[in-house]
Amino acid sequence: MRPPASIGQRLEDVDTPALVLDLDSFEKNLLTLKESVGDKVRVRPHAKTHKCPEIAQRQISAGAVGVCCQKVSEAEALVDGGVADVLITNEVVGAPKIARLATLSKRARIGVCVDDLGNLRAIEASGARLDVYIEIEVGMRRCGVAPGVAVLALAKEIVKFRKLRFAGLQAYQGRAQHVRTMRDRRLAIRKAAQAVRKTKSLLEKAGIDCHRVTGAGSGSYMLEVESGAWDEIQPGSYVFMDADYARNEWAAPLPRFEHALFVLSTVMSRPARDRAIVDAGLKASSVDSGMPGIWQRPDLEYTHASDEHGWVEGRKLPALGDKLLLVPGHCDPTVNLYDWYVCVRRGIVEALWPITARGAVT
Amino acid sequence: MRPPASIGQRLEDVDTPALVLDLDSFEKNLLTLKESVGDKVRVRPHAKTHKCPEIAQRQISAGAVGVCCQKVSEAEALVDGGVADVLITNEVVGAPKIARLATLSKRARIGVCVDDLGNLRAIEASGARLDVYIEIEVGMRRCGVAPGVAVLALAKEIVKFRKLRFAGLQAYQGRAQHVRTMRDRRLAIRKAAQAVRKTKSLLEKAGIDCHRVTGAGSGSYMLEVESGAWDEIQPGSYVFMDADYARNEWAAPLPRFEHALFVLSTVMSRPARDRAIVDAGLKASSVDSGMPGIWQRPDLEYTHASDEHGWVEGRKLPALGDKLLLVPGHCDPTVNLYDWYVCVRRGIVEALWPITARGAVT
Repeated sequence: MRPPASIGQRLEDVDTPALVLDLDSFEKNLLTLKESVGDKVRVRPHAKTHKCPEIAQRQISAGAVGVCCQKVSEAEALVDGGVADVLITNEVVGAPKIARLATLSKRARIGVCVDDLGNLRAIEASGARLDVYIEIEVGMRRCGVAPGVAVLALAKEIVKFRKLRFAGLQAYQGRAQHVRTMRDRRLAIRKAAQAVRKTKSLLEKAGIDCHRVTGAGSGSYMLEVESGAWDEIQPGSYVFMDADYARNEWAAPLPRFEHALFVLSTVMSRPARDRAIVDAGLKASSVDSGMPGIWQRPDLEYTHASDEHGWVEGRKLPALGDKLLLVPGHCDPTVNLYDWYVCVRRGIVEALWPITARGAVT
Repeated sequence: MRPPASIGQRLEDVDTPALVLDLDSFEKNLLTLKESVGDKVRVRPHAKTHKCPEIAQRQISAGAVGVCCQKVSEAEALVDGGVADVLITNEVVGAPKIARLATLSKRARIGVCVDDLGNLRAIEASGARLDVYIEIEVGMRRCGVAPGVAVLALAKEIVKFRKLRFAGLQAYQGRAQHVRTMRDRRLAIRKAAQAVRKTKSLLEKAGIDCHRVTGAGSGSYMLEVESGAWDEIQPGSYVFMDADYARNEWAAPLPRFEHALFVLSTVMSRPARDRAIVDAGLKASSVDSGMPGIWQRPDLEYTHASDEHGWVEGRKLPALGDKLLLVPGHCDPTVNLYDWYVCVRRGIVEALWPITARGAVT
């Protein structure tokens, strides 16, 4: 894959669309997370957001114990890139995936989640050496065992297996992340914390050590920290801050992160007074969580996207050939469209980082 | 990039998610298009949909004169894959792209669209040898010159240049494609045809030969053919048929195409009675035009997607580990998430075709 820019190039000379990482803001976000959490809990950022070992390594240098991901193929790319500790915060189902998980578990410290006894047995039969977390359902209504006795029953099975280590609970309230007001987010995390505490005490009463409760995202993680029910947090989007997260209310105890991820685009047509058309459509910036914002141009609005085009409207429209930096609506699926980050500091390309887990769906 | 399956493998053994092309339906769609058009116009299918030289070659074998694409980088991938005639149905703006266009124009027959005099001059100055089409705005309100005198003015400039050949008009009514009723689509194409005819006669009165009018998509192309105003059509999605196109009314003169593109997914969690969770979310099947359908399971509904998960609801939910074939909501951006087609005939993997223009955004 040909790199999309060259080191030392000026940002305005980079061909478009390009996925741009502003290094000053990115590094500030790493620091902001570290300072907000302090020593209160372990930090294990989610690499599903960035899919890039270069970024994972920098998160670990900033104090993270390792990273999370969602897919075995993502974990493989991270381990290939030198990451030694990866938790797959997801169930791994089906023979081909479990075989790969077992192979990977010999190369690095790997964790996985379970919510089903049959799946647990298939994983055990593969010979994998793993940290196993039980995913509990704390309000997202996605995967996971209902809090309480069902968790205890599954934990009793895990502790029977020699190669599997019962590591604790995965408890992620994904729906809370984009709840707009702090008040409502706090309520959602309070409920999740009750479910965690109840389950943990049930395990402990049965003599099963629940080493760790892990979970939380960028939109809520300090609420999990304050609750005292989590030992480890998994924020992902904080490194980039997308337009959808920016629509949240951000207030203490959550710090404010900076937009660090952009899509550089060019005005490719000025067909009429009412619109400028940019060369970045929905194959360049994911629209599942709304249209991208336009950086430092509050007078302009990106109103509509087709596959390869974006409509820009506003009072003082940019000219043909002008460049605009877009703030993606949703960072994770936008990153997944690119093979490289064009890393820029003060307008100059400083590095090119390959997105080696791009397209890692299996 | 490691292939996601192996030749001769049974479909049910392929790891998931996987992008599956059913070869029988795909070949039928090629034939259906050919039979519907006959010798009435030239066919130049849009490769933005499939991004794959293997598919382009089969379209050409089925009578197409070449293919279209939207980006210079897509055209490069197609020419690299042996396609000799590519029309970029889009404006190419900015020095890096124009330089690449000029280089490519020495390797194959390349066409490009313009809607601006300054851009035309920049392309001419690059030394490129190109077929140049003027894009006219026929109701999509995206790029393109307004029909009429403005087109004539631009055409008069193009014919001055020795290395550029004025090839005709690009006239695509993109908004008509997903207008649900045949009646409303017919009205939209009728209006577009009037704009085309008016502009063409203006050019001819001025002594400028308008060799070709090209345009049209899968949702309307026979209406353009019947109007007599187009010489060439550019359908793309017909090879695959996605869930959104299937929501259109399909009636004569448009033939019915078959679903040929699927995302194979696995039920990875059955956490409660009310839902099954599959391992294909919005990074595996684009949701910009709605959720995927579930193939041959009208009793099931894919109700919601997060990045790596899909919610399936219905009366008789599938069991953990069961496979489901999803029909993508929108084929083009879904294809752009994958590196390979897993080509299947009657349940057996027959070929693996690389999607070499995947991620070709520039």
